[in-house]
Amino acid sequence: MDFYIPFDAIDPKTRLEPPLTATERGAFAEAMLFDVIDAVQQTQGTPRVLSTAPIDIPCPVVVDERPLTRAVNGLLAMADDPVAILMADLPLVTADAIDRLVDTTGDVVAAPGIGGGTNALVVRDLAFRVDFHGCSIADHEHIATDADLDFSTVDSFTLGVDIDEAHDLAEVLLHGNGRANQWLREHGFSISTADDHRVSVDRRPRD
Amino acid sequence: MDFYIPFDAIDPKTRLEPPLTATERGAFAEAMLFDVIDAVQQTQGTPRVLSTAPIDIPCPVVVDERPLTRAVNGLLAMADDPVAILMADLPLVTADAIDRLVDTTGDVVAAPGIGGGTNALVVRDLAFRVDFHGCSIADHEHIATDADLDFSTVDSFTLGVDIDEAHDLAEVLLHGNGRANQWLREHGFSISTADDHRVSVDRRPRD
Repeated sequence: MDFYIPFDAIDPKTRLEPPLTATERGAFAEAMLFDVIDAVQQTQGTPRVLSTAPIDIPCPVVVDERPLTRAVNGLLAMADDPVAILMADLPLVTADAIDRLVDTTGDVVAAPGIGGGTNALVVRDLAFRVDFHGCSIADHEHIATDADLDFSTVDSFTLGVDIDEAHDLAEVLLHGNGRANQWLREHGFSISTADDHRVSVDRRPRD
Repeated sequence: MDFYIPFDAIDPKTRLEPPLTATERGAFAEAMLFDVIDAVQQTQGTPRVLSTAPIDIPCPVVVDERPLTRAVNGLLAMADDPVAILMADLPLVTADAIDRLVDTTGDVVAAPGIGGGTNALVVRDLAFRVDFHGCSIADHEHIATDADLDFSTVDSFTLGVDIDEAHDLAEVLLHGNGRANQWLREHGFSISTADDHRVSVDRRPRD
């Protein structure tokens, strides 16, 4: 199956500034994208990046300048076979989780994300259309059932945790094994347990 | 397998005030506990509540006034057979997720929670001891490997999302199907998509 990974190559991950600078956001977003591509490559799936601008990356890139929802719907309108959509900010994702996503039956299979997001989709009935605004996991279920399509979900922490906000970086330090984790460590980030509850991140002052 | 569900019957879920009052915290914590018990009862497991004080609940209750870590370690020291520990603030948890937890091999199997927590454990080698302070998922892995025990994790969103802070209530409204979801709706809570990113909760003013 083709896995399309939408990627904002122009101004990614704005909510990660601070603690990241604008330049750092770009580098960190690309590290996360590499982790997602790596995980897909460990499955039977074929990764393809759906990017808002050309990027230099060792996998096929489809450039579409339109916003996320319109770009993905454009892709669904053109597809002949089932496709998967996988967000680029999932550096915890494993090949096992992707296999479980693909092994779940349903015309539309979704991975819920923290805060009502939809972090991954397998679309087997190409009449389906996406809407990533607002509470997309609920919207996607409504869109599917309104079109008489079977909708199901996959229960995965590694697919559910997208990295959007500063405190999410702790999850990458805790559970990531790839480039995004390495990038954070190389740029001075470490786990802080000061709170004695949920952990957060510290950043070493730069020289 | 026996599933021990630690429960603070005295002063639960302090970080949920606000938006909840002290009395409401108690009622909502009990609603979440019921959801967890319900999920375990749909599996082959036997739920037992490990409570800091006597509570009136239709399942066996073991009262232990000690803090969480000491109470659980006391239980492991007395156990003859593998036991599972399941947090009481997991109202999203499903029987399928519990089955996957139990079906995962390892001397110690853990479900990571948001922010470095450990939301569930299956302990098959009773030499293992817990430590719920700080970044417990990393600590539990270290404790297991230091004792030459196989440590593994289960990848589950419904086990990973514990309800500790106000914004977590959105997850109950989005994904819960039981009493905790019902309690929130009856007490004026609804999903807010004002942010157009991760959703939050609104509360209707009380009359």
